[in-house]
Amino acid sequence: MQVEFWYEFASTYSYPAAMRVERAAAEAGVALAWRPFLLGPIFGAQGWNDSPFNIYPAKGKYMWRDMARICAAEGLTLKTPPARFPQNGLKAARLALIGQDEPWGPEFTRRVYLANFAEQKDISEEGVLAGILDALGLDAAALAARASEPVNKERLKTQTAEAIAKGVFGAPSFVVSGGDELFWGNDRLDAALQWAKR
Amino acid sequence: MQVEFWYEFASTYSYPAAMRVERAAAEAGVALAWRPFLLGPIFGAQGWNDSPFNIYPAKGKYMWRDMARICAAEGLTLKTPPARFPQNGLKAARLALIGQDEPWGPEFTRRVYLANFAEQKDISEEGVLAGILDALGLDAAALAARASEPVNKERLKTQTAEAIAKGVFGAPSFVVSGGDELFWGNDRLDAALQWAKR
Repeated sequence: MQVEFWYEFASTYSYPAAMRVERAAAEAGVALAWRPFLLGPIFGAQGWNDSPFNIYPAKGKYMWRDMARICAAEGLTLKTPPARFPQNGLKAARLALIGQDEPWGPEFTRRVYLANFAEQKDISEEGVLAGILDALGLDAAALAARASEPVNKERLKTQTAEAIAKGVFGAPSFVVSGGDELFWGNDRLDAALQWAKR
Repeated sequence: MQVEFWYEFASTYSYPAAMRVERAAAEAGVALAWRPFLLGPIFGAQGWNDSPFNIYPAKGKYMWRDMARICAAEGLTLKTPPARFPQNGLKAARLALIGQDEPWGPEFTRRVYLANFAEQKDISEEGVLAGILDALGLDAAALAARASEPVNKERLKTQTAEAIAKGVFGAPSFVVSGGDELFWGNDRLDAALQWAKR
């Protein structure tokens, strides 16, 4: 059995999930598939043109406090208040899509989350993304070119449509392959892994 | 330290929380305060005149599946699809408010949740509530009269205002007294109890 990890770079709770999902899956003996997608089209279809954490201030205030507790417990840096929220993760997602079946995909993903939430860098900036790719020993210019090709842009749309078809409405989400059992939220990662082992 | 358990009778995730909160708090050695309140005014202020699980179908479909998994794991009966959702928990909340500092309050609360989610009874019906009070050996007619007195109706509004002042925006929520640390969701019960023990 395999667990798909569906994530969006703007999503706060996807950050702690991304940082531990590989270790947790390995410990559970469950295969892991990284699945970047976009929440924008999903939120847009619900009539939201911003993060629900901005639209509903009480929920937003709670989320940042909850994230601070979670990150402190897991030894992750979280800088608050955020310099910008939500960030535009489109370019990063196009790169992560290329990397999702490559050895560098997971580490690229983690470094983008760190850039966003621990370092407060603007992850929509090509220079920030190129810096991460460079540090991983990759050809940043070639990957940026591939990422912006129409076929890759279309592939990200298709992947987002696949997420919607599987019932995904937020991030992070975990889908256990086979029965397509859906789990939503960083706090459901362990339940998803246990489900995959049933 | 004390943990306040803020709950609304229409709230699905409040059901498994209500069924285990007393046991969990006792095991953790943490004092527990039951705090019924109304989500209607809070949702209304956000522009919702229905449960977000009805307004957002993907979220609702997921919630019922997630609830089914949680209830199965905890040995709780959950009948789906619900005969009516959300139920009107106003009268039950007014009674629970009278009971919140009485010995019968917790068991009354649990039985209302069972009537709602395990038995699919209409908890807005006075007969259903009277049946529960009767079974607990209480004077149902006298309590119904007290529940509908203006002073008790007003007290429930005040308690809901207190919830909002503490940052509560959904149910169940847990507030650790002292620092007024807020935790939202059935899946945060253990985190709240651990926080209270710090």
